[in-house]
Amino acid sequence: MKKKIGLLLAGLIISSCQQTTKETKVEPEKPKISKATQQCINCHKVVTPGIVAEWEKSKHAKITMAEALKKDPDKRLVSASSVPAELENVVVGCAECHTQNPEAHKDTFDHNGFKVHIVVTPNDCAKCHPVEAKEFSQSLKANAYANLMKNPVYHTLASTTVTSIKYHNGKAILEEPTEKDFATSCLKCHGTVVKVKGYEEKNTPFGKMKFPILEGWPNHGVGRINPDGSKGSCSACHTRHSFSMEMARKPETCGECHKGPDVPAYKVYMTSKHGSIYKSLGNKWNYENPEWIAGKDFTAPTCASCHISQIVDENGNVIAKRTHKLTDRLPYRLLGIYAVPHIKYSKTYTVKNSMGLPLPYELDGTPVESAVIDSNEVAKRLNTMKKVCSACHAQTLIDNHFKEMDEMIAYSNKQILQATGLLVDVWKKNIEKGLPQGENPFDEPIERLWTQSWLFYGTSIRYGAAMGSADYTTFANGKWQLGKTIKEMEMLKNLKEKNKIEGGNSPPLL
Amino acid sequence: MKKKIGLLLAGLIISSCQQTTKETKVEPEKPKISKATQQCINCHKVVTPGIVAEWEKSKHAKITMAEALKKDPDKRLVSASSVPAELENVVVGCAECHTQNPEAHKDTFDHNGFKVHIVVTPNDCAKCHPVEAKEFSQSLKANAYANLMKNPVYHTLASTTVTSIKYHNGKAILEEPTEKDFATSCLKCHGTVVKVKGYEEKNTPFGKMKFPILEGWPNHGVGRINPDGSKGSCSACHTRHSFSMEMARKPETCGECHKGPDVPAYKVYMTSKHGSIYKSLGNKWNYENPEWIAGKDFTAPTCASCHISQIVDENGNVIAKRTHKLTDRLPYRLLGIYAVPHIKYSKTYTVKNSMGLPLPYELDGTPVESAVIDSNEVAKRLNTMKKVCSACHAQTLIDNHFKEMDEMIAYSNKQILQATGLLVDVWKKNIEKGLPQGENPFDEPIERLWTQSWLFYGTSIRYGAAMGSADYTTFANGKWQLGKTIKEMEMLKNLKEKNKIEGGNSPPLL
Amino acid sequence: MKKKIGLLLAGLIISSCQQTTKETKVEPEKPKISKATQQCINCHKVVTPGIVAEWEKSKHAKITMAEALKKDPDKRLVSASSVPAELENVVVGCAECHTQNPEAHKDTFDHNGFKVHIVVTPNDCAKCHPVEAKEFSQSLKANAYANLMKNPVYHTLASTTVTSIKYHNGKAILEEPTEKDFATSCLKCHGTVVKVKGYEEKNTPFGKMKFPILEGWPNHGVGRINPDGSKGSCSACHTRHSFSMEMARKPETCGECHKGPDVPAYKVYMTSKHGSIYKSLGNKWNYENPEWIAGKDFTAPTCASCHISQIVDENGNVIAKRTHKLTDRLPYRLLGIYAVPHIKYSKTYTVKNSMGLPLPYELDGTPVESAVIDSNEVAKRLNTMKKVCSACHAQTLIDNHFKEMDEMIAYSNKQILQATGLLVDVWKKNIEKGLPQGENPFDEPIERLWTQSWLFYGTSIRYGAAMGSADYTTFANGKWQLGKTIKEMEMLKNLKEKNKIEGGNSPPLL
Repeated sequence: MKKKIGLLLAGLIISSCQQTTKETKVEPEKPKISKATQQCINCHKVVTPGIVAEWEKSKHAKITMAEALKKDPDKRLVSASSVPAELENVVVGCAECHTQNPEAHKDTFDHNGFKVHIVVTPNDCAKCHPVEAKEFSQSLKANAYANLMKNPVYHTLASTTVTSIKYHNGKAILEEPTEKDFATSCLKCHGTVVKVKGYEEKNTPFGKMKFPILEGWPNHGVGRINPDGSKGSCSACHTRHSFSMEMARKPETCGECHKGPDVPAYKVYMTSKHGSIYKSLGNKWNYENPEWIAGKDFTAPTCASCHISQIVDENGNVIAKRTHKLTDRLPYRLLGIYAVPHIKYSKTYTVKNSMGLPLPYELDGTPVESAVIDSNEVAKRLNTMKKVCSACHAQTLIDNHFKEMDEMIAYSNKQILQATGLLVDVWKKNIEKGLPQGENPFDEPIERLWTQSWLFYGTSIRYGAAMGSADYTTFANGKWQLGKTIKEMEMLKNLKEKNKIEGGNSPPLL
Repeated sequence: MKKKIGLLLAGLIISSCQQTTKETKVEPEKPKISKATQQCINCHKVVTPGIVAEWEKSKHAKITMAEALKKDPDKRLVSASSVPAELENVVVGCAECHTQNPEAHKDTFDHNGFKVHIVVTPNDCAKCHPVEAKEFSQSLKANAYANLMKNPVYHTLASTTVTSIKYHNGKAILEEPTEKDFATSCLKCHGTVVKVKGYEEKNTPFGKMKFPILEGWPNHGVGRINPDGSKGSCSACHTRHSFSMEMARKPETCGECHKGPDVPAYKVYMTSKHGSIYKSLGNKWNYENPEWIAGKDFTAPTCASCHISQIVDENGNVIAKRTHKLTDRLPYRLLGIYAVPHIKYSKTYTVKNSMGLPLPYELDGTPVESAVIDSNEVAKRLNTMKKVCSACHAQTLIDNHFKEMDEMIAYSNKQILQATGLLVDVWKKNIEKGLPQGENPFDEPIERLWTQSWLFYGTSIRYGAAMGSADYTTFANGKWQLGKTIKEMEMLKNLKEKNKIEGGNSPPLL
Repeated sequence: MKKKIGLLLAGLIISSCQQTTKETKVEPEKPKISKATQQCINCHKVVTPGIVAEWEKSKHAKITMAEALKKDPDKRLVSASSVPAELENVVVGCAECHTQNPEAHKDTFDHNGFKVHIVVTPNDCAKCHPVEAKEFSQSLKANAYANLMKNPVYHTLASTTVTSIKYHNGKAILEEPTEKDFATSCLKCHGTVVKVKGYEEKNTPFGKMKFPILEGWPNHGVGRINPDGSKGSCSACHTRHSFSMEMARKPETCGECHKGPDVPAYKVYMTSKHGSIYKSLGNKWNYENPEWIAGKDFTAPTCASCHISQIVDENGNVIAKRTHKLTDRLPYRLLGIYAVPHIKYSKTYTVKNSMGLPLPYELDGTPVESAVIDSNEVAKRLNTMKKVCSACHAQTLIDNHFKEMDEMIAYSNKQILQATGLLVDVWKKNIEKGLPQGENPFDEPIERLWTQSWLFYGTSIRYGAAMGSADYTTFANGKWQLGKTIKEMEMLKNLKEKNKIEGGNSPPLL
């Protein structure tokens, strides 16, 4: 019976779709759904009921820009001081985002009389959140696609990782990777290039309809190249269609990309005292306060507390200012072969060391002066970060913590220098072919051990020191695994030298 | 003081146990505890107070079958349309389950005047939940014991994994595994054979009592062979003694068995966007609605949403029908050396490839037509799954996702084919002894690398693609580890060939 | 505007700091903050607002000792029967802890007219919690520093793990580790020696102030050697400054140190049925009841339920007595090369086997009688633990579980004996240099495989059996990895023997 009514309703809705829009009564000064959005909902309540139901619970569905703008700037979530008239007195629904800037969007298509696009971008969000969009555009994250794909060193490593191997005539040779090979692994986080490849008809509950064919989609990588030419994806962290601040502030969101052995930030955090407090007591915290009160709203920092959020004390005094340029509180670049002061530029692939490689350090770990921030900037950023710590910790503890971190960076750099020296020997003696021979430096077993020495173990040790995790400095991809790896590299070097065995050396993939 | 009263109370209870049953006042039309269950509780409130307290909070303790049957069939949790009179007007307590079908149960024993059995089975649960019990009996899960133990290939792999190694005369030789070796590892999840091996007296707070001696117990593996001849264990997922639907619907339950490097479903899910939403916001969802409303009750799928639960929209329209035959929504079998269309039969060990091995593919990855579902069935199951996605996603996104998954299956199959080709070469050249020599194909280091190539890395890549986890397609047992493994196999092949070193080749363990 | 008021307020507070103390009105019989604590808060509300806000939510901030002492001893959280008069009628604030026993504390310094120390120790806490402090002092945990650093075998393993490697002339040689090398890894959990190395001036919002320079700080390791000569850190588990019982009872707290591959207790628990119940339903439990009611307050044990907490039934009958001497319920020592009955002494480094090594077993696994508890004590402890199980499980299940665990201990010991026999052969044949040559037995690749065989895999198998995790007995650092490791050791032995290759053998580091 109920199902029959459901079908009837669906029928009614379909006819309302096929006519034009059902008028929505407009009561002035009451939050309301725009006509266009209402029309979207009429059909999508049938075809994608889950999104509609989720959105209905979101802030976007409950408050108009006009109402938001009445709040104190520090207490509201929009940074625009005004918006176009048509956005002012309606809540933020389907049409408000998916029909923004239609001309700029190559994925715009005619959909029931609307110019709709599928991929909502930072430029769309910027209408109400311009400060966040701008800061983000200046961050490394927004450039994550190019920072991987346009950096020949990292591109070779990525190629070596994602590509196919062909076993033939007793040899295992790496093949040239395809675009798909990247899209389904590295670019899940770094972002794909989303391209319109034409249009196709699809059957829908409302008959045949035309939709764009999208390549590189779905993807919510932070450095996605969008069909409107913009870079990045707000929904990487502000997950659609609830756009919950709670979720963006919880470490699980960051952990989607910062978890694997290559960037173990989430796992390191989770074994730290801070992570332990979060896991035990975090379900009672208040994540919805734009001015996040240390000690009251939360009693241990999440990723967002240290790196992004506006942190205040109980009297509203600002301890740290909100930023979406995530390096603002980061003095060092812990990722990479060596840890050095952070890179000056958000396009990290533009730097050059003395070998001409796009790395902010020489092969012996010396920072490249032209590539990294100077000591004043290091001090400034360190100080910003320390201010966050000072909400709950005395100065002695904070200073000692960062001194210890400095020492661990030095330790890890020194260890990686030994591993690198060993590998250079291997190359010099022609035991394996690598950089000096113009060959892939990441493909043979001994080279892969070296890669893991910094990509997995060096990184774990540095992150472990930064966040106070004993596991990740020691037995969980830490010092034990680093030491073991160097000794295994030594053993393989000796075995291969003695046996003069050639592996299936692969083309450079550069 | 309080303790003295406690002792007194215990005394009273003991005497009530030793007499017969304390009469419970029966008020018609009110949920009530049966006389038998009340007698159980009288003593077990003393000997196992925790179970009783937990059960008291459960649905089983609060509703009678008669009341449940008054509800709309879609809104109730029982699928029987009637039950024997004695079950109708009592809540489901100890006796209702532990004294069901006493003759069928070989573990039935006399206990204070009752015919009690310890191991409650799907046949017992079927009194009220016949549809679920039947569907489950047709699933691969119910056959998980035989699917491992009667499949010579998997049995050899399991033996190689669980057995002892004997180091003697410079050689490390695998020994024949014992039943215990399996029971404490693989069969924890696959299920043991629970056998009555006699009876023994035990001291209890109420004096000496006789109990059956059970082999293979405790165990709640999904494919357990029960003393009543039935297969499986409902409590694998519906954990006793609260039998909470919330728990069955949460991914942690599935994660008990689907977590290790061999079946990393839980870990893959947890690094996906869906898993991230669940971890961040899942504590606010409603898990108790039999008709689970997408977007309202939950805003991201758990394992149960995609594979089992009844999913509806806000109007009650069914998006996916509940099923306990878990392959109903699964087009492919991602586990195994190669991924192929799903196996036709719930007893997977009954299939045969052209080499006579019980695998649904040839050694080169070609699916065995007689073993796998046809393309119509693939399409049908894919469609059922896609319907679940469509609750929250547009068709383009869904279609692209599954296209990407298909490509990753092809990628992983191709890579495993290279690893397998390399291993076959090793066998042919007699560098190691394996299938061609009638020897164990899983025991030597190079064979173990090959095993990991598909069991750990191939599986991770396929699951990662299925659920959208960048970690598990890339650096967390993904493409990096797969590529590294193939190159290490190549190196070991060369080293062993050159050095003509014999390992302690082990008997086939078939 | 608000910020200006903030600055004004800060100004007022600073002047109140620089005068003396603002008088707090004392109302008799009402919980109150001591004058000294109020003065701390006046300034620290500005410099560390987060701690103050967190503390305000804690029990310490809400109840005086006098009030606590009115409660039934079983229902209160303090074990003292009286305290010094000055502590009686004030809540436990900053001064109550940070100015306790000022003469004993070498880190005491003059701070605004108070004798303040930074590092609060078990001796300070003992004023109100003497029973807990005493029990803890008798535990292995309180001795965790010496148990690692004074045991030459473990110290060598730790040195090998944390130290630097120098690659020179084609050889990778281990260097002598520094104190820092330990402090940033092993001693994070085992505890550092906290020493006062002088004093320094620091800039504060209230002008320059003098603070002690602390070495080995920050640290909250359980075996920390404190500036007052005491051992241990209550805040390892009772995290400052909320000191929440909920947090101490949740497994995440234990997981901070018991998680890595060397002590995977947390990860094993989390894949067990108990851990799954906790993760699914634990957010609804009551963690604040000093007498923790099995089945009512919680429906699956956490670490604390089995090892520490006071467990009772609904009538208040004690099932297990609270203990902070954690071995009270532990019959076996699962950590170590072999699992044996638990060590008799809390200073485990004092035992000696027949080779003179501080281990409770011989190199073939035989327990050293003088080192381990006798069979009566084993039975007694096992019985205490089984009582906890019996809250929710029948005797047959419990007995079978522990029988299975015994068998797995025997299995793991036997496997480690094979690995050890193989290594001894390697040493005897001089393939690598180890114990017989007076060299480091942990540094070369084959020795590191052996180390992992017991430190990672043996431990995982034993913990997996103890807590019922199929993952950790099988494919997650379990039997698969153990078997693979032994076969790899055999292969390396053969390869190295044939090729007569010398590695960079390192000095003993003893």
